Amino acid sequence: MILTAKGLSEIKSIPPAPLFEQAIQDAISELESVVDKGTDVPIPKDMGGGYTHEQHKRNYRYMLLAGALYQILEEVRYASFVKRTLFTYADLYKNLPLHPAEKSYARGKLFWQCLNEANWLVYTSQAYDCIYEYLSKQERQTLETELFKPFADFLSIENPRFFNRIHNHSTWGNAAVGMMGIAMRDEELVQRALYGLDLPERDLGVKDNDGGYIYEEGKATAGFFAQIDHAFSPDGYYTEGPYYQRYAMTPFLLFAQSLDTYNPDLQIFAYRDSLLIKAVSALLHQTSASGAFFPLNDAQKGMSIHANSVITAVNIAFGQDPNPQLVRVARQQGKVSLDQNGAAIAKAIQKAEGLEVEKPSVLLRDGAKGKQGGLAILRSKNITVPVKCTAQGLGHGHYDKLSISVYDGETEVLQDYGAARWVNIDQKAGGRYLPENNSWAKQSIAHNTLVVNQRSHFGGEYALASENHSEILFTEFQREELQFVMAKETHAYKGIELYRGVILWTNAHFKNPLLIDLTYAISDQAHQYDLPFHHAGQFLQANFDLEMIQPPAILGESHGYEHVYQEALGSIEGEMLQFSWMKDRRFYTISSIAEDKDQAILARIGANDPSFNLRRDPFLIHRKRHSRNPIFLTVIEAHGTYDPVSELPEGLYTSIQSIDLMYHDADYSLFSISTKENKKWTFMLAHQASNRESLHQIQIDNLRYEWQGPIHLFSQP
Amino acid sequence: MILTAKGLSEIKSIPPAPLFEQAIQDAISELESVVDKGTDVPIPKDMGGGYTHEQHKRNYRYMLLAGALYQILEEVRYASFVKRTLFTYADLYKNLPLHPAEKSYARGKLFWQCLNEANWLVYTSQAYDCIYEYLSKQERQTLETELFKPFADFLSIENPRFFNRIHNHSTWGNAAVGMMGIAMRDEELVQRALYGLDLPERDLGVKDNDGGYIYEEGKATAGFFAQIDHAFSPDGYYTEGPYYQRYAMTPFLLFAQSLDTYNPDLQIFAYRDSLLIKAVSALLHQTSASGAFFPLNDAQKGMSIHANSVITAVNIAFGQDPNPQLVRVARQQGKVSLDQNGAAIAKAIQKAEGLEVEKPSVLLRDGAKGKQGGLAILRSKNITVPVKCTAQGLGHGHYDKLSISVYDGETEVLQDYGAARWVNIDQKAGGRYLPENNSWAKQSIAHNTLVVNQRSHFGGEYALASENHSEILFTEFQREELQFVMAKETHAYKGIELYRGVILWTNAHFKNPLLIDLTYAISDQAHQYDLPFHHAGQFLQANFDLEMIQPPAILGESHGYEHVYQEALGSIEGEMLQFSWMKDRRFYTISSIAEDKDQAILARIGANDPSFNLRRDPFLIHRKRHSRNPIFLTVIEAHGTYDPVSELPEGLYTSIQSIDLMYHDADYSLFSISTKENKKWTFMLAHQASNRESLHQIQIDNLRYEWQGPIHLFSQP
Repeated sequence: MILTAKGLSEIKSIPPAPLFEQAIQDAISELESVVDKGTDVPIPKDMGGGYTHEQHKRNYRYMLLAGALYQILEEVRYASFVKRTLFTYADLYKNLPLHPAEKSYARGKLFWQCLNEANWLVYTSQAYDCIYEYLSKQERQTLETELFKPFADFLSIENPRFFNRIHNHSTWGNAAVGMMGIAMRDEELVQRALYGLDLPERDLGVKDNDGGYIYEEGKATAGFFAQIDHAFSPDGYYTEGPYYQRYAMTPFLLFAQSLDTYNPDLQIFAYRDSLLIKAVSALLHQTSASGAFFPLNDAQKGMSIHANSVITAVNIAFGQDPNPQLVRVARQQGKVSLDQNGAAIAKAIQKAEGLEVEKPSVLLRDGAKGKQGGLAILRSKNITVPVKCTAQGLGHGHYDKLSISVYDGETEVLQDYGAARWVNIDQKAGGRYLPENNSWAKQSIAHNTLVVNQRSHFGGEYALASENHSEILFTEFQREELQFVMAKETHAYKGIELYRGVILWTNAHFKNPLLIDLTYAISDQAHQYDLPFHHAGQFLQANFDLEMIQPPAILGESHGYEHVYQEALGSIEGEMLQFSWMKDRRFYTISSIAEDKDQAILARIGANDPSFNLRRDPFLIHRKRHSRNPIFLTVIEAHGTYDPVSELPEGLYTSIQSIDLMYHDADYSLFSISTKENKKWTFMLAHQASNRESLHQIQIDNLRYEWQGPIHLFSQP
Repeated sequence: MILTAKGLSEIKSIPPAPLFEQAIQDAISELESVVDKGTDVPIPKDMGGGYTHEQHKRNYRYMLLAGALYQILEEVRYASFVKRTLFTYADLYKNLPLHPAEKSYARGKLFWQCLNEANWLVYTSQAYDCIYEYLSKQERQTLETELFKPFADFLSIENPRFFNRIHNHSTWGNAAVGMMGIAMRDEELVQRALYGLDLPERDLGVKDNDGGYIYEEGKATAGFFAQIDHAFSPDGYYTEGPYYQRYAMTPFLLFAQSLDTYNPDLQIFAYRDSLLIKAVSALLHQTSASGAFFPLNDAQKGMSIHANSVITAVNIAFGQDPNPQLVRVARQQGKVSLDQNGAAIAKAIQKAEGLEVEKPSVLLRDGAKGKQGGLAILRSKNITVPVKCTAQGLGHGHYDKLSISVYDGETEVLQDYGAARWVNIDQKAGGRYLPENNSWAKQSIAHNTLVVNQRSHFGGEYALASENHSEILFTEFQREELQFVMAKETHAYKGIELYRGVILWTNAHFKNPLLIDLTYAISDQAHQYDLPFHHAGQFLQANFDLEMIQPPAILGESHGYEHVYQEALGSIEGEMLQFSWMKDRRFYTISSIAEDKDQAILARIGANDPSFNLRRDPFLIHRKRHSRNPIFLTVIEAHGTYDPVSELPEGLYTSIQSIDLMYHDADYSLFSISTKENKKWTFMLAHQASNRESLHQIQIDNLRYEWQGPIHLFSQP
């Protein structure tokens, strides 16, 4: 299935590479204390984090490893361990009622939710497959009729709301049923997994626990193929974002790998132009220098390519497409799978010394057909800028159209807050999503994006948000030193068009690439506009006077503003707002053009958070209180570092002296950036024109500016 | 002088060990871009962090390295570089006025303060020494009469307030003058450095810029020997604390090493029972697992054994006393000096693979005679607890008698805030001490120590604080599994005696050593008592209801309370207060006995901080509002860890079920600690009795408890 007969003979024919040897040794050590002992299969009782929950998780992991070790080392004690454990489960399962916890829309039996139940079956099916020949026919029949078949039926027929959705939960369900079908040679289960249940009616409009619909309009097909069709864009972008993709890739790839062994004619890995392999690549693009995933939508920070699920994904992908980028990622992961893919990639790592993971700029389109906006990722040297112009992302989506985040290596210069959740930390509402996930983390103000009249995009209404998506007008990534993405959002606010142009500019005059952000709105009427900068660092200095708000005032009553304390207010008097902070021993400065009466609000998360569920991070809001066509033009510079051992700073101050917006209309923007060393550059943008051949010209006073393509730059003496 | 003729021949006789080879290569690369170029010796203008300041610092470092490389590699271009630079300085210095910045009590010429001026001379004297033979007699005479002698006179005769104090500044001054004296063979300068200026009158009572006295009462002698006599305790504890000791050790050791070469009969390293070597050892004790110094008194966090000054100190100490602990520290440092000591310790590292730095518990007495309290450091496994019961620590001292901090490896479980200063970060008041250093960082509430009536110890008055010190009643470190220190403070508050007993207890029932803290006060009258716990982490859960204070209220008007926001108030109803938090992916819980009407204040730093100079860290205050003889008995447990990649917590909850104070009077305390698994231990303490032979007994109800020594423990079934 996963560990194949052919793979085994490959593994055994060559001396293992160090990382694969390590995988074997790790599995041996992990099993050492249990393999020759009795089994611990407790009566289900606890939620995630609790004893019975975690023990049932340990059990499927132990069985998985023992199955593989039995095949690789040919030691019977490992097979015997799997068999003992399975028969104990068969005994338990016979009369097992639903799990006592009633928190899930689809309760499990071993676990509080079917999702974990499906995890169990995905791994257990592999363990069963590994010892299939070790068991007698009679033993197999007992296990299949008393445990596996009822288990698979429970997850599918008895839980259609769990099994028949287009959702990562259902992917796990499909894979679980299908993989056990393959292990049992039960073609009916495999078909059920591939094509879903044929249900007489679709209860459109029923919501799941994440606030997403059980059945989305136009997604009424179900099963594994439907998941592949609907969950991914043609570029392999997963609409919920990388945190959930990392989790969902496991069943996609494990089931696909099993299917590829079971029925190679399906050519599952070639399906939709090799979509599953593309999806692994798309996932790997959405990472910081350290391999941490961008915490887009609901996502806990810290999740990274080091997760077992991603190791599995990279290894399976390498089995299909042995490209060097995967080898580099695997080396960064430092771990490989306990199967022929792991053995092969470990071998490839040995031969590939010295290559670093290189990530180019990329556009990952969203939507099953790639027509629902997308995620643009700008990269140059140490700076990475995800620009999120996607669809809503189902129930885990956040209301942050055209939002950016900024990384300097692994440092979050401008953060995406991620989810308000402490996964598996029982003290925080049992580790589930917290109320503040809806009231804060999902709201627009929690992101680096424009907020109008203190209301979230789409009013924070899921139904409305789900029907719409942003639009990427074009990306211009041909020259690393001058990258440009232009996007618009016309549905987030009625009667207001939002535009954002993001430029990543690398020039020898600056230590690091500069981020230039042109955010503007077009409307018939005047509104209040807030552009937040979530720096979460130690404020150093601003070029405006600060008036302390003491005690801090709460900024609003809804749409996330009820969680924001205003700690200080800066009234801008000049033509520029500058704001510097320190984070991770580095110095950053925002420079923005400003008008009289603009405000700079030094804000902090934390109001109306009675259980201290939120991180009380500081951020800056650039506010225009009454503007018809506001333009925010901002340069963000990473200009220095600090060493607390030598106590020496380098590059304490930004190089930016001034920014001059010389011209702006619906089609064009011209602006210049000047440094303290009297260098000056003029940028010419054609917002609406992606064609590199098009000629543009405008006249300002007596000067005529002419250029070709969407962006042009010249430096002045 | 530092690099000796004998040392050089040793270096050249053997192939260099890798770390020493690295030191040579690092010096070569650092000099590569300057050694064959013209010199850059700008007219002094800037403060610390500014160009001219940093360039003059670079110059002495370049000269130092070039001098050493000239001797080691015998390449003339390095000597030529030093010579060129020195003559440029001679030209500049001739008519140089005082530095334009007027911020210092002792302005320099090249730099804004004499301190940096002395740094320059300490390093330049070594460079001069290295090229002494390379220069003609005439050249030497020019440099000595036009640069070095006037420079040394300026630092001493012309700046007696700088030169004749007992202070780290003067140590630099003494070393600078003395080392240049040695390099010039000028015995008069050496004598001046060793014994100070003979001043006709002592202007007692004049304060320096740190708020300390220029001449402390009873410390009227001056010069290098006086510094050694007064700055260190017999255990090598430096009264200002490790942050300043790290800085001060450099001139102590460089001058001592120079003297040892120049006049071995002085036996400077043997002086005061080898005090300088003991001082290096004392410094190394005051570190976390990563080698970060405890930020006692005024100290910027992040300073560590990786500082060049500490590398120098460890290497020079190794030259005198080649003990294996220094070798282990040097390996952790990963760098060695460019002299025979560096060559020798690099060689020793090669032979000493596999040994980790081991730090035992230790008491470092304070005071020149060791009679002014001390710093007790309790250690067991990963837990380290400094207990600060020292004297005031001169002008950089904080008002935190009997304060503790707690480390778990390198994690600060309960932090010492350190100084309110961003060293060399110009945006923050030029990198100098901030006003909030006095108003917050020095105050008692900023520390983990008992605060009475919202007033700091000694009312925060330096004169009063300087006259007093805490007292360590005894330490009991014989058994690693049960360590105990008992201390008292009777002067911090008039009419109130403060006591603190700290126990570090290691038992197989707990994953990590438990910290038990018994803090109590004795007074004739009732007062308000606050015991802060500076956890600076993410609050998880408490066993009391939280009432949000929204917006947060400022807790007071002075003594640091004006900087404290009260975010929530917990009213304790049961007999125990429990409070859990998460930090650095680990879980911690405080469990304390409590009485009705006790309060738990969830506080945050940040009020009255208009320039955002303070870190806005959260902390907990356990408050007894009206108590005559308050007793705080607290258990702090590090009980778990979290992995954001697997998303699995281990040990989410504390094991502590209850704490029962069974008996307490002026001599004895008995209490029991019970776990959720129904284990129970009873602790018996004799607070005032350090004698291990003494027998103690008390009767509670019908039970008689008998034990021997200051602490005894038994477990109950």
